[in-house]
Amino acid sequence: MLLQDNMTQGAMEEPAQHKPKTMYVKAIPLRGIEEIEKVKEEVHKNSIVILRITPLAQKNVDELRRAVEELYSYVVSLGGDIARLGDERVILTPPGVKVWRGLL
Amino acid sequence: MLLQDNMTQGAMEEPAQHKPKTMYVKAIPLRGIEEIEKVKEEVHKNSIVILRITPLAQKNVDELRRAVEELYSYVVSLGGDIARLGDERVILTPPGVKVWRGLL
Repeated sequence: MLLQDNMTQGAMEEPAQHKPKTMYVKAIPLRGIEEIEKVKEEVHKNSIVILRITPLAQKNVDELRRAVEELYSYVVSLGGDIARLGDERVILTPPGVKVWRGLL
Repeated sequence: MLLQDNMTQGAMEEPAQHKPKTMYVKAIPLRGIEEIEKVKEEVHKNSIVILRITPLAQKNVDELRRAVEELYSYVVSLGGDIARLGDERVILTPPGVKVWRGLL
């Protein structure tokens, strides 16, 4: 909001210096393999995605496996993380966020 | 890890200045109302908690309602966010992280 007025180009290039941007957690259903581009984009935009995989699991298990493999490669290449959450969901995180695998 | 050796008190107070700290997503089950202190502590330590509420829901619905109310107040007072995730889970976030409620 502070950047809408008469600021120089230089100042606009680093708006995050002054105030950290809000990060979002987005719960999304996966209905088809074509939807993984949207999921990748969300993680790329620094969102944490909680992907409900059951809609695709009920339609096509092969497509689901390919989708998860592709998302796995993408998230790892980005420096993020990916993990199962129960039977129905997968968590995908951007760089700087990890899924805790220890005990509490 | 960098702070284990002979560092001055002053340096130890602001380790996050140089490198942003990793944020964790922690999946935790809620078995009793006495466990909410641990959940609060995790959010206070800047973790995102995905709380599976079914273990307590199956034992004591009144306790569950009190637990969720107390967690709600705590997270809001901290400047974080809280939202349901399906029938079995609640997401709690620290300040700076919000649960997306829009459509994708």
